[in-house]
Amino acid sequence: MQEIIEAAAESDWRTPDPDNTLYMEIDSAAPDSGRVIIELAPTFAPEHVGNVRTFAREGYWDGMAIKRSQDNFVVQWGDPRGEDEEGKPLGSAKAKLPAEFSRASKGLDFHALPDPDGWAAEVGFAAGFPAGRDTGEGLAWMAHCYGTVGAGRNIEADSSDGSELYVVIGQSPRQLDRNITVVGRVIEGMELLSVLPRGSGPLGFYEDPAQYVPIRSIRLASEVPEAERSLLQVMRTDTALFDELVEARRNRRDDFYKRPAGHIDLCNVPIPTRQGNPQAL
Amino acid sequence: MQEIIEAAAESDWRTPDPDNTLYMEIDSAAPDSGRVIIELAPTFAPEHVGNVRTFAREGYWDGMAIKRSQDNFVVQWGDPRGEDEEGKPLGSAKAKLPAEFSRASKGLDFHALPDPDGWAAEVGFAAGFPAGRDTGEGLAWMAHCYGTVGAGRNIEADSSDGSELYVVIGQSPRQLDRNITVVGRVIEGMELLSVLPRGSGPLGFYEDPAQYVPIRSIRLASEVPEAERSLLQVMRTDTALFDELVEARRNRRDDFYKRPAGHIDLCNVPIPTRQGNPQAL
Repeated sequence: MQEIIEAAAESDWRTPDPDNTLYMEIDSAAPDSGRVIIELAPTFAPEHVGNVRTFAREGYWDGMAIKRSQDNFVVQWGDPRGEDEEGKPLGSAKAKLPAEFSRASKGLDFHALPDPDGWAAEVGFAAGFPAGRDTGEGLAWMAHCYGTVGAGRNIEADSSDGSELYVVIGQSPRQLDRNITVVGRVIEGMELLSVLPRGSGPLGFYEDPAQYVPIRSIRLASEVPEAERSLLQVMRTDTALFDELVEARRNRRDDFYKRPAGHIDLCNVPIPTRQGNPQAL
Repeated sequence: MQEIIEAAAESDWRTPDPDNTLYMEIDSAAPDSGRVIIELAPTFAPEHVGNVRTFAREGYWDGMAIKRSQDNFVVQWGDPRGEDEEGKPLGSAKAKLPAEFSRASKGLDFHALPDPDGWAAEVGFAAGFPAGRDTGEGLAWMAHCYGTVGAGRNIEADSSDGSELYVVIGQSPRQLDRNITVVGRVIEGMELLSVLPRGSGPLGFYEDPAQYVPIRSIRLASEVPEAERSLLQVMRTDTALFDELVEARRNRRDDFYKRPAGHIDLCNVPIPTRQGNPQAL
């Protein structure tokens, strides 16, 4: 895989749009402080991404906390106040959004994997994100893989507003696909979230507020001074080179593997990143 | 799911054989110290499990360390000495073992899932462990799911001796199935391992020995005084009740889920545990 990455041309990489990129700065136990980078997916959830951008611009999450860490499932952040307390005002964000569990498959550039999948008629990549598709139903949706970020909701399908977000930290919970609005994917810094102590309360919520992990800020990259921006680039998922990379993972040909699998699951496909060259950006 | 667990009869639970149960006591940053419980799988890897029992009996791992934590992949422990240093003597354990990547499917009580799987002809449970089977080839093997414990090896298929063990902490790396010897599964305490800081060296090895997580001891439950044993019981995977539980996860019928998946992946099936009643044991 390393050889394929090294052979990549400039055109095999893309720089996420700073207007679709969140920087989440967390203060956890040293040396785990740092920046988590999330790429937003307006292609799949335009309304929710719109709200998320508003929350970031207006500093909604600044000073809030990561309040849930459930082993082999999700880490979640948002307003730490209880259900029975008044929450922080949403500012200019919309109070009510439609559920965006899926979108029309028509008009979406979908790069399908040939591999069978138990959860979806087809799986592959769209707009750089792992996704499922059912052309019979005419729908496509983002898949819940490691690093996928979604909008927490209550029982009602349209009860999410994007203020409460979670990220998958364990085995892909694909049963959530088409049941919740996915807003993006962590492209750097997963290891800052995945190591957080698990909460001892129901669903992994921290029982003692002292356990909350403070969020210093969540900002759009486009609103951060250029000198403070990350130069992260993501490998394109719609190229011949990416197909080659997937095949190298589907059938491992190095000396360690004695029996190549001949298969890969959507959520086992790595999407490489690199630090871009400041001159080239 | 909770209702199904509560409806379980005594006969739906089993108590792992203390001779196939390891207690790994680790000293990580408080409050993460504690006991990890591993159930060994002699049904699948009798030779490796034999060595593991010997290592535990002779205190081979006591004072050793967890030395690798690779995000979304594995945590690994064993002798922290480098490849070029002389390792700790193996004691009465065998220096050379055969690769035990799979076993004959004949004679194995295999409880198959109806769900399709991309990695194996069939998947299901055997001896309480998630497993794959190919009756055409006449083989069965343990699957790499969250919590699966395997024996690290070098390039040669038969280069593992069971002294170096890893546990899966991320998305199921099923490409390892049939490529490495699996010795068991963590049945309690995963959250003590999954939160360990990721190593910054290649493959997630800790670069600074100060980062090593000390192993106080690894013992067979059968060699620990009864008063210090855990009363953990594991749900049987070959019962009608377990089928019911799998179905409840395959098609979630609670108010939250708007569209039941109609499918479950092997590694998404939870195997419940409970604290047994000391009187009943």
